[in-house]
Amino acid sequence: MKKFNICFIGAGNVATHLAVELQKCGHNITQIYSRTTESAKQLADRLNTDYSTSNETVTKGADIYIVALKDAVVEQVLSQLEFDDKLLVHCSGSLPMNILSKFSKNYGVFYPMQTFSKSREVNFKVIPIFVEANSNQNLQILEDMANEVSESVTVLDSDKRKSLHIAAVFACNFSNHCYALAARYLDSKELPFEILRPLIMETASKVQELHPKEAQTGPAIRFDENIINAHLNELKEMPGLQELYNSISKSIFEHHQEKE
Amino acid sequence: MKKFNICFIGAGNVATHLAVELQKCGHNITQIYSRTTESAKQLADRLNTDYSTSNETVTKGADIYIVALKDAVVEQVLSQLEFDDKLLVHCSGSLPMNILSKFSKNYGVFYPMQTFSKSREVNFKVIPIFVEANSNQNLQILEDMANEVSESVTVLDSDKRKSLHIAAVFACNFSNHCYALAARYLDSKELPFEILRPLIMETASKVQELHPKEAQTGPAIRFDENIINAHLNELKEMPGLQELYNSISKSIFEHHQEKE
Repeated sequence: MKKFNICFIGAGNVATHLAVELQKCGHNITQIYSRTTESAKQLADRLNTDYSTSNETVTKGADIYIVALKDAVVEQVLSQLEFDDKLLVHCSGSLPMNILSKFSKNYGVFYPMQTFSKSREVNFKVIPIFVEANSNQNLQILEDMANEVSESVTVLDSDKRKSLHIAAVFACNFSNHCYALAARYLDSKELPFEILRPLIMETASKVQELHPKEAQTGPAIRFDENIINAHLNELKEMPGLQELYNSISKSIFEHHQEKE
Repeated sequence: MKKFNICFIGAGNVATHLAVELQKCGHNITQIYSRTTESAKQLADRLNTDYSTSNETVTKGADIYIVALKDAVVEQVLSQLEFDDKLLVHCSGSLPMNILSKFSKNYGVFYPMQTFSKSREVNFKVIPIFVEANSNQNLQILEDMANEVSESVTVLDSDKRKSLHIAAVFACNFSNHCYALAARYLDSKELPFEILRPLIMETASKVQELHPKEAQTGPAIRFDENIINAHLNELKEMPGLQELYNSISKSIFEHHQEKE
């Protein structure tokens, strides 16, 4: 397919992984724009391209501008830049597509649903990408580009994408926090986090085949009060953990009392 | 090493996986005792051995009795059986070893820390096993047996094992419930759970290398109120999810405010 000149607005985790991947596919990453010099330079160096931290020097020659910023600053940053009605795309799970309409006549969304950390390589082929655009022509461009990097591409409107993002927060951010709380508790008992790794891997592997409701094990399903009360008692010196232990256990029990 | 005659008390997920594994290692599973005829028969058939549902016919010839029952019923079931001071072992994360002292002079614990479902095969070699016993001789037997089935064997006292079990509840049962809540929410929006599978797998894979605190991503770390409030508003028709979304997000934020 056609190769594009792409400018990235943002140089964080998502921008880094996506820019590297699109470059691998033969697209020309013309510039990295970021308000943070260090991350702009770091990503530009990795891609052997230019960077800018001043809104006056954002490249005018790009075909596509990909915005990978945190949601809260997207509108503010974009209002300082000019896009000459080129295709302007954000990567957010939660922001509606239409917030881009005041910055360009051509716009869309390219949302790769994954948890990115700069230090960790990911296999883009298995990352589901959700696209949306203001016209069929722009949608075709984004679908083609998504199909180059991933085997799982879905056209999804802003409302559904927001729902998906909420589900992703539970499945990823919140499950990771459960690991973090486990790590903190083990730390307080001078036990190493490492011993939980096989259990964590198996918990995630199970739901690659089973539905999570079938995969659930542990004392909370049957609300085993002996164990639950003993655990709550052990957690009394860590009130934050104790409270979450209680509320998540109740939620598990209620979930398993409901009819299918 | 020496091969033993082993009787299992219980025929649930843990008993099933452990009995199959010990038989593979050449031990003789002489009998399955369970109060539930169906599961007793099912496991006995799989092992090509006998089963009993009556406390009067529990085999007297075993060298080791392995108790894999839910914690709440262990003492009640054991009080109806006789063990002739043979080695009596439970598999619980939370029960202290000493509850066994009134049933036999020889006792210990063999706790495989994993989430078992009958329908799913597991690789025992990577499952951490924690052992404890009332004497060095009995400890040696349990360590040897654990080393036959797993590459990760640790001697751990009852207090530390209970701490470990609490951490396992967070890392496994609670993270799985986060998947389940995501699935339920997607279901309410007519989106399939399947699309979350790559994200779940990567979330668990990340912490095989990184510490979960480093691996954390998402709106709650920086308490991005735009996203969080939008999500809470979307969840208003599911108050259970809304409440957990709020409390877990707060916990993530507080966790990331703390000094290392």
